[in-house]
Amino acid sequence: MALDLNSDLGEGFGPWTMGDDAAMLDIVTSANIACGFHAGDPSIMRATCATAVRNGVRIGAHVGYRDLVGFGRRAIAVAPVELRDEVLYQIGALDAFAKTAGDRVRYVKPHGALYHAAAADRELAEALLAALADYDAELALLGPAGTELETAAAEAKIRFVGEGFADRAYTPSGSLAPRGLPGAVLHSEEAVAQAMSIAASRTARTIEGGEVAVSAASLCVHGDTPAAVEMARRIRASLAESGVQVEPFA
Amino acid sequence: MALDLNSDLGEGFGPWTMGDDAAMLDIVTSANIACGFHAGDPSIMRATCATAVRNGVRIGAHVGYRDLVGFGRRAIAVAPVELRDEVLYQIGALDAFAKTAGDRVRYVKPHGALYHAAAADRELAEALLAALADYDAELALLGPAGTELETAAAEAKIRFVGEGFADRAYTPSGSLAPRGLPGAVLHSEEAVAQAMSIAASRTARTIEGGEVAVSAASLCVHGDTPAAVEMARRIRASLAESGVQVEPFA
Amino acid sequence: MALDLNSDLGEGFGPWTMGDDAAMLDIVTSANIACGFHAGDPSIMRATCATAVRNGVRIGAHVGYRDLVGFGRRAIAVAPVELRDEVLYQIGALDAFAKTAGDRVRYVKPHGALYHAAAADRELAEALLAALADYDAELALLGPAGTELETAAAEAKIRFVGEGFADRAYTPSGSLAPRGLPGAVLHSEEAVAQAMSIAASRTARTIEGGEVAVSAASLCVHGDTPAAVEMARRIRASLAESGVQVEPFA
Amino acid sequence: MALDLNSDLGEGFGPWTMGDDAAMLDIVTSANIACGFHAGDPSIMRATCATAVRNGVRIGAHVGYRDLVGFGRRAIAVAPVELRDEVLYQIGALDAFAKTAGDRVRYVKPHGALYHAAAADRELAEALLAALADYDAELALLGPAGTELETAAAEAKIRFVGEGFADRAYTPSGSLAPRGLPGAVLHSEEAVAQAMSIAASRTARTIEGGEVAVSAASLCVHGDTPAAVEMARRIRASLAESGVQVEPFA
Repeated sequence: MALDLNSDLGEGFGPWTMGDDAAMLDIVTSANIACGFHAGDPSIMRATCATAVRNGVRIGAHVGYRDLVGFGRRAIAVAPVELRDEVLYQIGALDAFAKTAGDRVRYVKPHGALYHAAAADRELAEALLAALADYDAELALLGPAGTELETAAAEAKIRFVGEGFADRAYTPSGSLAPRGLPGAVLHSEEAVAQAMSIAASRTARTIEGGEVAVSAASLCVHGDTPAAVEMARRIRASLAESGVQVEPFA
Repeated sequence: MALDLNSDLGEGFGPWTMGDDAAMLDIVTSANIACGFHAGDPSIMRATCATAVRNGVRIGAHVGYRDLVGFGRRAIAVAPVELRDEVLYQIGALDAFAKTAGDRVRYVKPHGALYHAAAADRELAEALLAALADYDAELALLGPAGTELETAAAEAKIRFVGEGFADRAYTPSGSLAPRGLPGAVLHSEEAVAQAMSIAASRTARTIEGGEVAVSAASLCVHGDTPAAVEMARRIRASLAESGVQVEPFA
Repeated sequence: MALDLNSDLGEGFGPWTMGDDAAMLDIVTSANIACGFHAGDPSIMRATCATAVRNGVRIGAHVGYRDLVGFGRRAIAVAPVELRDEVLYQIGALDAFAKTAGDRVRYVKPHGALYHAAAADRELAEALLAALADYDAELALLGPAGTELETAAAEAKIRFVGEGFADRAYTPSGSLAPRGLPGAVLHSEEAVAQAMSIAASRTARTIEGGEVAVSAASLCVHGDTPAAVEMARRIRASLAESGVQVEPFA
Repeated sequence: MALDLNSDLGEGFGPWTMGDDAAMLDIVTSANIACGFHAGDPSIMRATCATAVRNGVRIGAHVGYRDLVGFGRRAIAVAPVELRDEVLYQIGALDAFAKTAGDRVRYVKPHGALYHAAAADRELAEALLAALADYDAELALLGPAGTELETAAAEAKIRFVGEGFADRAYTPSGSLAPRGLPGAVLHSEEAVAQAMSIAASRTARTIEGGEVAVSAASLCVHGDTPAAVEMARRIRASLAESGVQVEPFA
């Protein structure tokens, strides 16, 4: 039993901060670091990479749409070839800091609206994968399993790593229950239990009470509030107590 | 006798174009490619790198202040550590495209206001050199000789390559005569003659009629107007006819 | 018989230029001036407003998505309330220059992807109209007739002005034939004839040879190439020769 | 005895927040609202203007350099005519929201590095004032007394309002003691006492123990930390208890 814990980090910009990166870098094993398009600036990227490497946390490029004001949460109708180039740019920029810190970018995870758009659209998924292939075919792609991203990764011969969520209920089809639904967001014990279930058996209970396969080698945890950080810490501790190897996938 | 010809390329952005890059990439041996901060976008960077590699032109990162509207021509009081990070970011981003095109970034040249600021200010020069050293100590720095940039490069053990100008008159101290002065800008035959003089003897005639040493292994030529392109072409042809090896310094 | 001629102007940014604004401001009666989000910067806005007022050309706010690199041509999934605020911001910014030049913003025209998105989506259309109503209920909206924009304008009690095209073929339903179709783009005499037809009878021949009503009090002409400028000039001259009052709608 | 309290507000951007604007808008009488160049986005501008008007707080345009990542704290060598245009753009944009909220922009205060640059440089001060004169000669300028800003305002016949600080020690010359000096930053009782002294007699004790005239009709208070908000609240309460009219200058 092994599981990676990943979190979206380095999401400040200039004078603005977001989340408690220092705390999260003590908890997670993989850091999805913003690359300056939806968040992150060069100095934040340097500092986040340095702390990640010091803590043995793997560095991933959290690539997003070029949209600071919208934080990459709004779909933009970018042509696939332009998306490929924007992703490649971000990977290269982050890798400069990863190398300076003594490691390198190990994987790529799309952020926000791009995560959803590329999961649903083959052309966008292929464009994203093309950037990985251009840069370094050893890069892995972290994202939602069973989507165009997984298919495109297989075609591009890029390692795909499925991502799960401890704090979100699943539907019987294996997708996340919409946030609006009662019970869609899991708290404390439930989230810890779901993390354990995914770690132990790659399954989760569905929002309807059944069981569903969750193809995830990495769990996404959040650091945007003190409560979120605390939950991430408990998930890590519970996993470790149960003998799960909490370790980087990359 | 050998000389490199460099030019500032890839200076469009989105829908906007600047200069005749295709023509210049047939003339020069080194391309200073904008990295998205003062000009350039990912798709332009990819295309410019691809053509450069196809033509055997070396790729340099033309790093600038983060200032699209001002085209990097306005000094910004960036703290040295932030400048270092902004430069490192730009090098990494461009290198992703250089590698994809089959080569890599070989050198760095500061652009516009940063060129002048870093030449005059030791702390900024050191910050810029720190970015090169962080990324790859094999990178060269292209810039004005006899300035803080050259000194800082020596300290950082980074190869420094002096840059000269065919179309600008020199003062007896070896600096460029201010554009406002009569005779400060050289045209046609004069520019070709100055290129030849720098290639043959690393000297130029001064604006006052004397002779001055010009420590330049690379000449900067321009492609912003058809006349500029034509002058660059003539300079290259004249150098070649005279037996000067027009070849990359890197 | 009266007709307005409008054109998209002020579409440079910083060091980059686009089109021949000076020529177009001698031809058109309404200037759709970019407001800094998809193109345009404060100094360009000032200069364009000043020339427009000098020439008796009405000033319209050409509002777009916040997307310089994509030139506002890529749809962005902006929430309606945010779109309203982004449009209001742009109107206010341009009006500062219009007032300084001695006039004021008279109308608003959405640009690029926003033009199409707001024409097709009632919520976006209402958001755009809400910005006009917030700023000044005397503002007109220039856009494609028979769309959600016209409906939303009626609801908001904002004057709507339909826009036609001289150089694009219409379908029997009154929409523009897709650019890809043979005959979709009209040249020289055909375009002049279509301008005359719209001016005289608010009709055009369809791409299939029939006739269709074109609800347009303003024709859009282009200045991005010398040929486009020349066509705009001929359209204006032909209209004038035929006794059409070429005059601002606002 | 009357005094205005002003604060820098609306300094978030997109997903990022800064300070406790809601609390400050219950304390101050003038709100310096960021206009999108160094901070602030259209939706934040709308919300901040709306709350300000609801609370009877006057709206000022807090204009800055176009530099989100540097938060307007880094001097940029902007040409005066461009600065004038950038300031005019920001005033117009904010005024659209002020009008929508039922009031209008009453004054302008330069932000960060622009505050200091324009105070020290006549040309920049004149450029800034030119923007005010262009937009509305009834606008006031809020800034440091005894500087080029005050002189340029007098020349431009724009009302100048001096700004003081409760929490910063003054030198005998009337300028602020550099933050690095021991005693340069005043806490709790000292700051309240300085506010009272400025309100009552337009004087403050200097860092050396003497007394100095402080030409200030408005005190700047901060909301970036809970402690800062608490101090602002105490200053307002103390002023009110002592019979000082805490009221807008505009």
